[in-house]
Amino acid sequence: MTSSVYSAAVVGLGPMGAAIARAFLGAGVDTTVWNRTRAKAEALAARGARVAADLPAAVGQADVVVTVLRDHAATRRFLETVPSDLRAGRAFVVLASATPAEARRTQEWATERGFALLQGAIMVPEPLIGTDDALVLYSGEQRLLDRWRPVLEVAAPRSVFLGPDPGSAALHDTAMAQVFFAAMTAFLHSAAMATAQGLTATEFLPWARESLALLPDAFAQLAADVDAGTYDGAEDNLLMELSGLEHIHATSVEAGVDLRLPALLRDLARRAVDAGHGADSWSRVVEVLRAGSPTV
Amino acid sequence: MTSSVYSAAVVGLGPMGAAIARAFLGAGVDTTVWNRTRAKAEALAARGARVAADLPAAVGQADVVVTVLRDHAATRRFLETVPSDLRAGRAFVVLASATPAEARRTQEWATERGFALLQGAIMVPEPLIGTDDALVLYSGEQRLLDRWRPVLEVAAPRSVFLGPDPGSAALHDTAMAQVFFAAMTAFLHSAAMATAQGLTATEFLPWARESLALLPDAFAQLAADVDAGTYDGAEDNLLMELSGLEHIHATSVEAGVDLRLPALLRDLARRAVDAGHGADSWSRVVEVLRAGSPTV
Ligand SMILES: NC(=O)c1ccc[n+]([C@@H]2O[C@H](COP(=O)([O-])OP(=O)(O)OC[C@H]3O[C@@H](n4cnc5c(N)ncnc54)[C@H](OP(=O)(O)O)[C@@H]3O)[C@@H](O)[C@H]2O)c1
Ligand SMILES: NC(=O)c1ccc[n+]([C@@H]2O[C@H](COP(=O)([O-])OP(=O)(O)OC[C@H]3O[C@@H](n4cnc5c(N)ncnc54)[C@H](OP(=O)(O)O)[C@@H]3O)[C@@H](O)[C@H]2O)c1
Repeated sequence: MTSSVYSAAVVGLGPMGAAIARAFLGAGVDTTVWNRTRAKAEALAARGARVAADLPAAVGQADVVVTVLRDHAATRRFLETVPSDLRAGRAFVVLASATPAEARRTQEWATERGFALLQGAIMVPEPLIGTDDALVLYSGEQRLLDRWRPVLEVAAPRSVFLGPDPGSAALHDTAMAQVFFAAMTAFLHSAAMATAQGLTATEFLPWARESLALLPDAFAQLAADVDAGTYDGAEDNLLMELSGLEHIHATSVEAGVDLRLPALLRDLARRAVDAGHGADSWSRVVEVLRAGSPTV
Repeated sequence: MTSSVYSAAVVGLGPMGAAIARAFLGAGVDTTVWNRTRAKAEALAARGARVAADLPAAVGQADVVVTVLRDHAATRRFLETVPSDLRAGRAFVVLASATPAEARRTQEWATERGFALLQGAIMVPEPLIGTDDALVLYSGEQRLLDRWRPVLEVAAPRSVFLGPDPGSAALHDTAMAQVFFAAMTAFLHSAAMATAQGLTATEFLPWARESLALLPDAFAQLAADVDAGTYDGAEDNLLMELSGLEHIHATSVEAGVDLRLPALLRDLARRAVDAGHGADSWSRVVEVLRAGSPTV
């Protein structure tokens, strides 16, 4: 059925694991699949996947075992069930969201238990898996990435190694995902405001994309300011921005939608203004964020 | 000094008003400037601006008066001081952030007082004024935009008319600005997390831009879901996302930074999950936002 010189297992067949398994199968990789809910594994049989009878069978048939479970707790529970004699002689690649500290703990935990473990963070939505845009960030055991790059790049041609700290991929993941989800939430909030006033979300879409187009350059300015520790307000100032954020909040009131996002943005600006920084740029808000929450 | 067939006044010379005045002057528009703090007007004299002795003089010399004040309260205070006989015979273009309801009130207020008033919202940062990317959204009196497009396009080649509702520009402005500021805040938050763990903000920048690159397509999916009122979770589901958002929150705890942004994102997901929608996509969060704030 396949011509690959190595065999892979994919453990965890949610949307992301299934996409990775399909990418492997599409490239002719000898692939065994396993999932807690067995139906999701069987759905891949028609594409040429071997459906493992049980977990040891899935692991035993593979040179590289890719786990795509919801989190590290589920991942460690899976790894615990791998018989000791099947732990050596193969690589385990853990792709699941975590915090940096938890990723470091998992690395230590797994090493103590005889696993050769590489951790990665998938930075693209499921439909991009297998395309040239697919990006996975790895950190920790570089030799494992070097060894298994040919198969891992089938799922994600952009497989990037960040460094030896096994927490680094998780740090990048959480930091990047926060930018993504804050924008995704703001889009829904603004769509709720716009649809309350008679627009459709689809009509609002091109305008939201106009705002997105400004962000790459705007982020560069923020990064420069954060690293310099200076927040020059010659082009934009927090007093002006606070006024604009009050209007966003009031528009949410007019539309009858949730106020927490605009209240948070306004309050961050207000705290910087109250601390005497009204003439500074938006980048000054990093100092407010570093000071920690007034209440949580 | 100039060859223009009409004359403009710019009232309000903060960063944005000054940029608009410089664009006019650079294109040879006969431009008079006025600012409450007079030094900012005088700074433009060297570029060929006439500095008005007083406000009536600024208005009296202009065919089109562009006001770039902080908000509509300041704008109405300025308009009130314009002598009645100077209100007719010229157009007033108000560029200041507002809510839709306030923009409608200003329109009515100004019409009752004899002004021909056009409202716009500037959708780009100050450095883009006068470039091909400069975008200003107008709504309300289309004939005024048609008449003054030649001068307004000097500042913003992309001068777009949205429709007769004078609140429409403000609605688009607040909705678009919220996407922008949520992302700007998330970048600073993530930069605070990353710098707490030894990265620089500049090292984080290209990764943040990777997240931005995903958003145009992701927004299109959100918009389609919002308009259809269906939130299919086949590619991404809220239970998975809630787990990821808990990791972002926990990473903020590890880094000792403000928790409010990650707590908000997590709580929105949690509310949708608690309402039984864990298998739906992120787009389902729009329903949570429409339900209004539990507490403000
Ligand atoms: N979907 C995306 O677009 C995307 C993007 C970037 C990153 N990711 C990451 O990819 C990982 C998987 O996400 P997903 O989208 O595939 O969705 P998911 O719904 O989180 O997938 C869950 C998978 O984990 C399994 N699982 C959950 N808890 C388990 C447990 N206690 N024991 C054993 N198996 C367990 C599920 O098995 P059952 O089928 O039996 O429930 C399923 O195979 C997550 O860490 C996510 O952050 C996903
Ligand atoms: N800067 C940007 O990148 C940007 C981008 C998009 C939109 N905008 C919009 O452009 C408008 C102006 O913003 P800006 O950046 O130029 O900054 P700003 O700091 O808000 O500019 C304030 C201007 O308004 C004047 N002003 C404020 N309160 C006044 C009052 N009560 N009476 C008379 N004048 C008053 C100031 O005069 P003094 O000099 O005497 O204080 C100054 O000329 C705002 O509505 C803002 O939302 C700005």
